[in-house]
Amino acid sequence: MSVPAGLTARERFLRACRGEPVDRPPVWLMRQAGRYLPEYRRVREGISFLDMCRDVERAVTVSLQPVELLGVEAVILFSDIFVPVLGLGIDVDFRPGPMIGEPLRTRDQIHALRVEDPRQTVPYVFEIVRGLRRALSGPQIPLLGFAGAPFTLAAYLVEGAGSRSFSAMKRMLYREPALMRTLLDVLTEMTVAYLGAQIEAGAEAVQLFDTWAGLLAEDDYRKWVLPTHQAIVERVRGGGAPLILYVNDGAHVLESMLESGADVLSLDWRCDMGMAARRAGRRASLQGNLDPCILAAPREEIFSRVRRIAEQARPARGHILNLGHGCLPDTPVEGVRAFVEAAKSLAAGSA
Amino acid sequence: MSVPAGLTARERFLRACRGEPVDRPPVWLMRQAGRYLPEYRRVREGISFLDMCRDVERAVTVSLQPVELLGVEAVILFSDIFVPVLGLGIDVDFRPGPMIGEPLRTRDQIHALRVEDPRQTVPYVFEIVRGLRRALSGPQIPLLGFAGAPFTLAAYLVEGAGSRSFSAMKRMLYREPALMRTLLDVLTEMTVAYLGAQIEAGAEAVQLFDTWAGLLAEDDYRKWVLPTHQAIVERVRGGGAPLILYVNDGAHVLESMLESGADVLSLDWRCDMGMAARRAGRRASLQGNLDPCILAAPREEIFSRVRRIAEQARPARGHILNLGHGCLPDTPVEGVRAFVEAAKSLAAGSA
Repeated sequence: MSVPAGLTARERFLRACRGEPVDRPPVWLMRQAGRYLPEYRRVREGISFLDMCRDVERAVTVSLQPVELLGVEAVILFSDIFVPVLGLGIDVDFRPGPMIGEPLRTRDQIHALRVEDPRQTVPYVFEIVRGLRRALSGPQIPLLGFAGAPFTLAAYLVEGAGSRSFSAMKRMLYREPALMRTLLDVLTEMTVAYLGAQIEAGAEAVQLFDTWAGLLAEDDYRKWVLPTHQAIVERVRGGGAPLILYVNDGAHVLESMLESGADVLSLDWRCDMGMAARRAGRRASLQGNLDPCILAAPREEIFSRVRRIAEQARPARGHILNLGHGCLPDTPVEGVRAFVEAAKSLAAGSA
Repeated sequence: MSVPAGLTARERFLRACRGEPVDRPPVWLMRQAGRYLPEYRRVREGISFLDMCRDVERAVTVSLQPVELLGVEAVILFSDIFVPVLGLGIDVDFRPGPMIGEPLRTRDQIHALRVEDPRQTVPYVFEIVRGLRRALSGPQIPLLGFAGAPFTLAAYLVEGAGSRSFSAMKRMLYREPALMRTLLDVLTEMTVAYLGAQIEAGAEAVQLFDTWAGLLAEDDYRKWVLPTHQAIVERVRGGGAPLILYVNDGAHVLESMLESGADVLSLDWRCDMGMAARRAGRRASLQGNLDPCILAAPREEIFSRVRRIAEQARPARGHILNLGHGCLPDTPVEGVRAFVEAAKSLAAGSA
């Protein structure tokens, strides 16, 4: 297959997701609209994080900043994985990590959860998506929607907050497996409806973030996490948008990630890109996977790492350059700029 | 090779470390002397964590509690990885995580560090070791010493406290590699002297804890971490005590762990024991690797997991049953008891 001349950013991105030939890997960064950008901090001033997620104008503005300021080649909806959870009637606060008003610990709490239509409960999300899609139709930049994965949401909802061990959540998993399964089923339903509504509103690809699934050993992951991913992939794919699956710290569950059926696997930097690309082959495209801390390195080091990642990713059917985790508040803007430039400097032959 | 009859716990443990035949894997738990035990909490009452590390009588008491109360088959010195750091003149506090008084960020700070004789700077550590060795000579239980690994200590010393990304530490690593190398060299010297003095005082095996090394991609790990492990193994092994290397979240660096030369690799639960045992073969014994959260599961589940881990570990030359991480404050005592019983119920043929 040959590469069509003059690909737009949208075409390059969607072709890379599907494993069709492209001139070079497209580039964007997880949490590219974030506190490391002075322009983002100005828009965020005097408003809470959750209110920012509900403020259509500001959310559209910060989502677009990385295109205008840094030249990234995909835009992701500005929001938070807990926004659809608000639609379940669960109280969430950010200080600055998520805090659940009443952690879900009982059968009654979990059996009372009802999935409503997200277009009714959190309509602003879809207004943001529609606003972004309009803004991006000129420059032909692809728009991504996203959701937190059921296991990660369940981890927070049961634990009540972030944790190093998530032992309350794991206790439910090992002592009350049927209850945990019910919770995961509800969250899977919710996620399917939420991503479906984003695609309907104009998202051209969606990313599922499973931040905490990597806490499980592979056998537990296969039992608890993989079925949620498979159900979401199967039911969301009908919308025609490729699905990108990100599992933080998931090097040990790569094979299970491949079995999810996701179009693209987003890897963190601990997962060797060369090994992953050989195992992925034609089964999935890959995204990633520079350690965000390396954006503090000298420019030449960033360029050399980007070249190496692109080289290692070649055995996979497609590759999207990205970090292995989100940009950090102390990420230097010049490092992000170097990363994007390095990606764009890759010739078709070397990527 | 056949198994000698009537092995003592000491013989079983040391033979398992060296890959000699044993009747069944020995069992102990990381952080077995910890807050989950009411008897531990009583001894800890009204005294700070650091003072507890300096209090020879109390430290000996809590170190021995898990033998008396739970029947574990190895004792580890009660102390903290920051104790030898106090000997460098660095101010450390616990609230409850470690907080470094003045994080090491400059060339002057790092070049001013001097490694003194730990027998002079932290003599109480070796008094605890001698006290434990005396107490354990009757029951023939092996005594382990330990130290934090240079990379993990450097991570805290540069960052100033625990962190999810350790971006200040990684910034030094990528921007001032020579300075980071100097710091790691000083901490390697310190660790060699510290472990050597523990062995001299009576420790029969030593464990090196590298809690944060798993944050690095494998190529960075090979450059920054592996040489520190190799230097420590080479210089400490002359003392005749086996060295156990624990790398938290290190599934992706298993091959490099094998190249360290450590006698035993202690794995966390994310590292598949069967795969690790096949790769280790005669090169190293393995320790681990139950997820500590599974100690909240029903007794039958704990027994079945222990049997499976022992089965999976068979291709390795030796196996020590342990958790994949330390006991947690909310670990149920009955779960720890079930774990120890499950290990002891393993027949020679099945382990």
